[in-house]
Amino acid sequence: EVKLLQSTDVTGGTFTLLLIGMIGTAVLLFLGTGWVSRKWKLPVALAGIVAMLAAAYYWQAREVWLTAGQMPVIYRYIDWLITVPIQVLALYFFIGTVARPPTGLFWRLLVVAIVMILARYMGEVGFMHPTLGFLIGIVGWLYILGEVYFGKLGEINTKSASETVQTGFFWLRLVVTIGWAIYPLCYFIGSFAGGVDEGTLSIVYNLADFINQILFGLIILYAAAKESATAR
Amino acid sequence: EVKLLQSTDVTGGTFTLLLIGMIGTAVLLFLGTGWVSRKWKLPVALAGIVAMLAAAYYWQAREVWLTAGQMPVIYRYIDWLITVPIQVLALYFFIGTVARPPTGLFWRLLVVAIVMILARYMGEVGFMHPTLGFLIGIVGWLYILGEVYFGKLGEINTKSASETVQTGFFWLRLVVTIGWAIYPLCYFIGSFAGGVDEGTLSIVYNLADFINQILFGLIILYAAAKESATAR
Ligand SMILES: CC1=C(/C=C/C(C)=C/C=C/C(C)=C/C=O)C(C)(C)CCC1
Ligand SMILES: CC1=C(/C=C/C(C)=C/C=C/C(C)=C/C=O)C(C)(C)CCC1
Repeated sequence: EVKLLQSTDVTGGTFTLLLIGMIGTAVLLFLGTGWVSRKWKLPVALAGIVAMLAAAYYWQAREVWLTAGQMPVIYRYIDWLITVPIQVLALYFFIGTVARPPTGLFWRLLVVAIVMILARYMGEVGFMHPTLGFLIGIVGWLYILGEVYFGKLGEINTKSASETVQTGFFWLRLVVTIGWAIYPLCYFIGSFAGGVDEGTLSIVYNLADFINQILFGLIILYAAAKESATAR
Repeated sequence: EVKLLQSTDVTGGTFTLLLIGMIGTAVLLFLGTGWVSRKWKLPVALAGIVAMLAAAYYWQAREVWLTAGQMPVIYRYIDWLITVPIQVLALYFFIGTVARPPTGLFWRLLVVAIVMILARYMGEVGFMHPTLGFLIGIVGWLYILGEVYFGKLGEINTKSASETVQTGFFWLRLVVTIGWAIYPLCYFIGSFAGGVDEGTLSIVYNLADFINQILFGLIILYAAAKESATAR
């Protein structure tokens, strides 16, 4: 049975919009891996994989929304459990095109990204006090911010001779700071500050994913393509 | 459950036709990104992504039409909200192969293309007076026409030494002028001039998409391939 998208269903519209936006982004980034020079292929591919996995999420989310009229946030956490670690590593390899950051940092970023999402998930399910889960999530996010601003990643970026890398990293950092802040904000509003209607909350989440997954990927491709063009 | 396509259902036939046309165009353009020289890859890829997203739209549109016997135009607006900005940027990067147009123009074209479609959507949903939405759409379209004929894009094209680029841009410009005019015309007929049967309107929309998405992409590939051949 086909569920018709109603013209007044703005939430359903944004689910569709994000679905096609993610597919387009994934394909562009996958094609882009063929245009950029060797060392840029990995960060571009990782961002493309994130967009592709997000497309799978939005495919399902759109269907659930159109048939059930709701979209439990738990689906998003499962998606993020894979995509957020990949994005953090995309940042690591982005800076890795300038100089190799320490291997220990690779593992720390990976583990912290997983714990950040997992803690919140366990809070949701009741394996952990929700507020504790929230606090662990905040600490993880602040740790990642610390690494990109004041840690080794920020340091390599500052010393980098390439203006393109610096501009790209500036914008990626802004995404991690402002774009990512939307999620704990949504969680806070939804849990502590009392109910906001689920459709509205979904629109905000979708906007956040647009910034954090689509723009994030395009910034990486932009820097990669520009650097690759001057390299020849 | 399989819905059979009736031989007398011309509208359903054109939905099927456009679906396979879009798939074919997308595959050809994606393969084409591998044949053209570096600077041509982006415009060809963007046109390919437009065809691919349009294929997704037609996949669904065909299904909805066959099962529900209608195809609300709202689906098209959601598709356009992504594809029209991409096409406008494809024009920008097409001319960018000759000389880099100003970055400000990039953002202006992007914003105007989004506003043009969004205004009309908001008119539909009732967030805005429908006639106001229509007028904003018209102004946006005229702005884009102005840029390609008399603005920086037209200027770079006129000064270009390449006859292939000039011929390509001539045809692309014609598409944007005549092909795009079909949409406001359909809207006008549908809203103001009183009801036309939805099946007939869909056939006209499908014809317009054939011009604006399939021919548009093939023109870009033609110019890109021809220019790449002489570059070697
Ligand atoms: C701080 C904090 C959170 C942070 C989540 C973040 C920062 C998610 C980032 C997600 C991304 C980038 C998704 C796109 O791929 C939670 C778990 C919401 C709740 C607990 C507090
Ligand atoms: C002027 C105008 C319109 C113009 C739409 C255009 C110009 C759409 C172009 C669509 C394309 C190119 C789709 C293919 O990808 C609307 C919104 C119908 C209605 C309001 C007036």
